[in-house]
Amino acid sequence: MVIKVTNDGPVRVITFNHRSSSNPFSRNLQVAVTQAALDASADDTVKAVIFTGGTGRSFSAGGDFNEVRQLSSPQDVDKWIDTFMDMYLAILRIPKPTFGAIEGYAIGIGFQVALMLDWRIMSKTAKISIPELRHGIGGSVGGAILTALYGADVARETMLGALEFGADEALLRHFVQEISSPSTVMSVTLEKALDRAQFASESYKNTKSAICQPTERALLECIDVSKKVHRAAFERKAMASHFENILSRSRHNSTSN
Amino acid sequence: MVIKVTNDGPVRVITFNHRSSSNPFSRNLQVAVTQAALDASADDTVKAVIFTGGTGRSFSAGGDFNEVRQLSSPQDVDKWIDTFMDMYLAILRIPKPTFGAIEGYAIGIGFQVALMLDWRIMSKTAKISIPELRHGIGGSVGGAILTALYGADVARETMLGALEFGADEALLRHFVQEISSPSTVMSVTLEKALDRAQFASESYKNTKSAICQPTERALLECIDVSKKVHRAAFERKAMASHFENILSRSRHNSTSN
Amino acid sequence: MVIKVTNDGPVRVITFNHRSSSNPFSRNLQVAVTQAALDASADDTVKAVIFTGGTGRSFSAGGDFNEVRQLSSPQDVDKWIDTFMDMYLAILRIPKPTFGAIEGYAIGIGFQVALMLDWRIMSKTAKISIPELRHGIGGSVGGAILTALYGADVARETMLGALEFGADEALLRHFVQEISSPSTVMSVTLEKALDRAQFASESYKNTKSAICQPTERALLECIDVSKKVHRAAFERKAMASHFENILSRSRHNSTSN
Repeated sequence: MVIKVTNDGPVRVITFNHRSSSNPFSRNLQVAVTQAALDASADDTVKAVIFTGGTGRSFSAGGDFNEVRQLSSPQDVDKWIDTFMDMYLAILRIPKPTFGAIEGYAIGIGFQVALMLDWRIMSKTAKISIPELRHGIGGSVGGAILTALYGADVARETMLGALEFGADEALLRHFVQEISSPSTVMSVTLEKALDRAQFASESYKNTKSAICQPTERALLECIDVSKKVHRAAFERKAMASHFENILSRSRHNSTSN
Repeated sequence: MVIKVTNDGPVRVITFNHRSSSNPFSRNLQVAVTQAALDASADDTVKAVIFTGGTGRSFSAGGDFNEVRQLSSPQDVDKWIDTFMDMYLAILRIPKPTFGAIEGYAIGIGFQVALMLDWRIMSKTAKISIPELRHGIGGSVGGAILTALYGADVARETMLGALEFGADEALLRHFVQEISSPSTVMSVTLEKALDRAQFASESYKNTKSAICQPTERALLECIDVSKKVHRAAFERKAMASHFENILSRSRHNSTSN
Repeated sequence: MVIKVTNDGPVRVITFNHRSSSNPFSRNLQVAVTQAALDASADDTVKAVIFTGGTGRSFSAGGDFNEVRQLSSPQDVDKWIDTFMDMYLAILRIPKPTFGAIEGYAIGIGFQVALMLDWRIMSKTAKISIPELRHGIGGSVGGAILTALYGADVARETMLGALEFGADEALLRHFVQEISSPSTVMSVTLEKALDRAQFASESYKNTKSAICQPTERALLECIDVSKKVHRAAFERKAMASHFENILSRSRHNSTSN
């Protein structure tokens, strides 16, 4: 199964379980995550939700190279973006406390998925990375998300700089709210989720919806720009080489760790 | 008197003087503060304004439990929110340098009042706290204020996390601009206010109005959502238990200090 | 020549070269910088752009006092603001990686020009300063830029506080992205620019344009307010005394250094 869905008391745990430990967002993984987010939203017994890449695995290294290189028309690119947008929105709209437990790498789309969550806990040894522009593909969705959450300057320095952040730098920018040792990321996240699961659901839902509305609007508004940017990159074959880079790096990394 | 209004040269000092040292925002206190803000705005001899809870007293522990539990209809809730909004807007619109001297606790609405001020000086031992969601009531006004001032991520982590901040953490997030020892909070604030009282009033007014406009708009836009959120909480009797919690804590604290 | 334009491989270097080492933005300097920004945008051989005040010279001490005191009508004030806006927009719209190498002082308009750039490297001994309100003139343009980039609270504390920042404080607020020793500011900036010059231009352009759009809109929206604020200050003769202060300070500084 491409995801595992379990419960720990009132806490739903959604584990990305791609056969690769770097958890690339294949279409199958995206569709499964989107459905799991909708299910968690609808299930009244679920009081908080954790997203994780699994113990000792990457949260997500981003898009799936093997699928991206098979995109064969601008329409494929549009559909690829729509699938991501559905996933972002389904996660952002969960009307309950949501958490990300980040180990290994959160790269590009993987980082953007993490930013849809209310609270992010990062392993001391994990890395957040936004390499898109270095590899020649656009980052307008990341730019829109970061602008809504942190203002235009953090968006500009992060996206245009194609930066990589260790845990301390990520915490400094509020990209994550807590740092933990690799061995305790999940237990710390679970403890936090169990605490917040006790908050009154109606008030949490209303407050969260008010706060997340500008981010949701930013996402919806950037869909068209994003399609334009990625179609252009697609036509220059930049996406294929971008994901080739990511893939070889993740591979290198999982070997060396 | 529920407030004290004094002058120190060109600086107007407005002291919250509720009979409780935790300075809950009773309707009387709110109406008096709103009027004092309007008076300070209109008085040409006033060149800067300081808001304080009084030496050795809390800036404000937020809403007044004794009044909240007497709200007996949705219309009462709406009126309660309108009274707060009038106070927020009257303070935000003071076209002069405004300062907050924060000792003890600034909780919920108390913190939000502080955020209406241009510059906040916090005692090393003071605490800022946003416990609403933990106690089951909504925080959409706080969310709107924090989003306008700091971006959606700080709003999300602060409101949804129901967090408490010591002085260092508050400074790190720009919730306050300066930290001082408890014994010097007022003198440091006064020195700052006297300096800025010399700035040309017309330019200060114009620049401040331009900068504060998005925050003002955010406040005005969230009134309806806020009424909806609080009505819903009221119907679940969440507000009463929230303020019960705050009250018992402040009591505990003023005993133990 | 009031600017020097050179190339280092694919990197265009635009050096403000006012006869005064404090690089006040005279009309001549503004027009030359605007043209140089347009040229760099249009020239396909240019892959990145550095703006600098020259080695051992200030990035820019802001407006040119000698010209400001000759403004003799409200129409002159409007034209003065239009010239600045043209420069800000021409720099912000460069569809390529842009860098600022900041030595000496970046004051008022000088700081605002730096904020139009994607990435800012600051000498350990440089100072950023926004003294407008202390000198009685408005700062609504600075307020609009800072609000778009950093949120309303940083805008409020920076503009209304008429603050000065050393390199560490500037880095903490993301006003600059890197600090360097005075002797290496230019070489560090060049190294960074050469790296980013390799990014695919089309994707950089599209992503940057998406991220910078809210800042551009904020600039365009504040033109009218800015004219109103500065006309008012002009009528009170505040601008003349402001620039007198800046000038005497820069003079003092270039003597003492």
